Amino acid sequence: MALIVQKYGGTSVANTARIKNVAERVAKWKKEGHQMVVVLSAMSGETNRLIALAKEIQAHPNPRELDMMVSTGEQVTVALLAMALQELGLKAKSYTGTQVKFLTDNAYTKARILSIDDKVMRADLDDDMVVIVAGFQGVDAEGNITTLGRGGSDTTGVALAAALKADECQIYTDVDGVYTTDPRIVPEARRLNTITFEEMLEMASLGSKVLQIRSVEFAGKYKVKLRVLSSLEELGKEGPGTLITFEEENTMEQPIISGIAFNRDEAKLTVLGVPDRPGIAYQILGAIADANIDVDMIIQNVGSDGTTDFSFTVNRGDYNKAQAILEGVKATIGARSISADNKICKVSAVGVGMRSHPGVASKMFRTLAEEGINIKMISTSEIKVSVVVDEKYLELAVRALHKAFDLDQGVA
Amino acid sequence: MALIVQKYGGTSVANTARIKNVAERVAKWKKEGHQMVVVLSAMSGETNRLIALAKEIQAHPNPRELDMMVSTGEQVTVALLAMALQELGLKAKSYTGTQVKFLTDNAYTKARILSIDDKVMRADLDDDMVVIVAGFQGVDAEGNITTLGRGGSDTTGVALAAALKADECQIYTDVDGVYTTDPRIVPEARRLNTITFEEMLEMASLGSKVLQIRSVEFAGKYKVKLRVLSSLEELGKEGPGTLITFEEENTMEQPIISGIAFNRDEAKLTVLGVPDRPGIAYQILGAIADANIDVDMIIQNVGSDGTTDFSFTVNRGDYNKAQAILEGVKATIGARSISADNKICKVSAVGVGMRSHPGVASKMFRTLAEEGINIKMISTSEIKVSVVVDEKYLELAVRALHKAFDLDQGVA
Repeated sequence: MALIVQKYGGTSVANTARIKNVAERVAKWKKEGHQMVVVLSAMSGETNRLIALAKEIQAHPNPRELDMMVSTGEQVTVALLAMALQELGLKAKSYTGTQVKFLTDNAYTKARILSIDDKVMRADLDDDMVVIVAGFQGVDAEGNITTLGRGGSDTTGVALAAALKADECQIYTDVDGVYTTDPRIVPEARRLNTITFEEMLEMASLGSKVLQIRSVEFAGKYKVKLRVLSSLEELGKEGPGTLITFEEENTMEQPIISGIAFNRDEAKLTVLGVPDRPGIAYQILGAIADANIDVDMIIQNVGSDGTTDFSFTVNRGDYNKAQAILEGVKATIGARSISADNKICKVSAVGVGMRSHPGVASKMFRTLAEEGINIKMISTSEIKVSVVVDEKYLELAVRALHKAFDLDQGVA
Repeated sequence: MALIVQKYGGTSVANTARIKNVAERVAKWKKEGHQMVVVLSAMSGETNRLIALAKEIQAHPNPRELDMMVSTGEQVTVALLAMALQELGLKAKSYTGTQVKFLTDNAYTKARILSIDDKVMRADLDDDMVVIVAGFQGVDAEGNITTLGRGGSDTTGVALAAALKADECQIYTDVDGVYTTDPRIVPEARRLNTITFEEMLEMASLGSKVLQIRSVEFAGKYKVKLRVLSSLEELGKEGPGTLITFEEENTMEQPIISGIAFNRDEAKLTVLGVPDRPGIAYQILGAIADANIDVDMIIQNVGSDGTTDFSFTVNRGDYNKAQAILEGVKATIGARSISADNKICKVSAVGVGMRSHPGVASKMFRTLAEEGINIKMISTSEIKVSVVVDEKYLELAVRALHKAFDLDQGVA
């Protein structure tokens, strides 16, 4: 008998028919003898509907009142699931974040978790009850309702698993696990049985939007065993999904590269001929940050003529805004010109194994060269190598790298 | 400066445009220097939508889970009103029943109020804040969400007014007050400036559905000054509505009859030739009560032959069910036959003044006789006389009585 926390997203509870399906899946696990805690999102579309209502009244809705409103979506689905489980003959009870004392700070719309009181849940579990908790929401010390921000239900699941010391936290989604890359681009892509937390973080932040990145960080911090599974698979025919593991456990059998991630949602900006003096990076990126634009990759190279070229990438939606800001900055800092490109993409090889295999980067560059793909930017971390290339080469680059690192064969 | 509690119903908050109108009305009172507490219902239709969802899963939804769900409707409207008031430059904050510790027992879907903690609200009011509270909902001692049953938002308003010792509780609805009778039937009907609690109770229970009857009882018990007003009147041109008063204050100037109420939603059943022995009434009505059928008027007359006729009225929706039950009871108790009639209506003259004017009943009967209207049942209380007549005479009877008691003229 294990204590399992399961989390189901908005599409899994989009209507009462799907909620009944979730109930059957939960019931199957419960009948196998496990203690079950279930976390739900709101019905898909509901949170957006509520936000739209708020915006009919306030262009920038008051964060406290917005949290008060949007937290109702999960309150509805958890009650419906409790009813559906009762119809299957199980004992079940739903809870709001307030009711399980899911304590957060009062940073409305993006609250941080402070503590969770497991007393009520423990008592229910001991009483053979399925405990259902509204995802995404918490309560501050004064009793105000807070939310954890978009995708926060994943984090709720992991946090509950940590608080209850659950044996496993299962995140049900519409894919059956984490893949070596996107199967729509590389049909040979394979589901990974395991992936390390660090790799998952890199994969998630690079656009493989399987799990909310914050929940992965949280799981890593509290050593929660996290598994990604599909809620669309037929009962009794489910695959094992992908288990997200702690590196230490797995280094021995880890392949060098676990997957090829990519992101076509970026744009590249370069300030050319910048005088090479202290404070220049801040003058450029400070202006960008002041406009609330997130920067991803940053590269600076000092040239031979005492000037430097400064490049960075931003989300493609911020491309025009960033470009306009740079034109203003150019005069101030005495740069030569601005070059900008929004037809780029980022491709990354991710794997903890590269720490002990220094040849990964050169193998990656050689592979791309053999395909005639020019590299525009390079950035590396401990466990990933990222390159920026022309967007038109995305599929070619991903396929070539997937093959070069033998990801289409062998045990993942 | 007064402390005012205002309650707005579902049609007043049906969409964001109407919520903005409510905000303007509240703002007007606030700017006049009053301390304001506002209670809201859910958007009209929302509670029914949620109940329908629940019924897609459970034919008889679990009461705890149902309350969990339906309480979300008010949580949305209060947050939206807080935003709308903030847009008008006022400080405003919304609260759930849980947050203001609106403590009830745990009789889900029909909870009784135990206590209200006014601390948070008082602090906000002292801070010049408009306090907005979700109607209809409470919380039990274990933190479970409860609801007060249909129309419970009126009761929330009155209960908050009692707890805060408010100067007045204003119930905003779609009529501008309580009338001497339905103006659609008698164009000469006049709005009453005042009506006593007892009269209001009789009027409400007789089908003048202006206020939820429980809220009137509550107001009477805690001596809350209650006023019915229209939320549809143009700002700055509002009438005074109808103030519901305590009898003692007004007896002197009270007219004998305050209004003519009626109800066409009843049906009459008679068990004829019942042996006149102890326990018969229980044998008949016990079976009816067991089927969860509410009984309104009850009349029993002993005849000369040692048998009696036993008549009562039920809601017309229960007519067929009640008839079937009586057919079963007939044999058991040895009654002669069952007579049933669902083409009836009840017409009542209501007024505290009749206590000191014993001629009201006879004047009523004479008036009906002059119009050729046959009386099928009579029932009286301290402050009302009700008769059951053929449904086709409803309008004629109401008009004749309204005129006979001079309700179309003079100060109400």
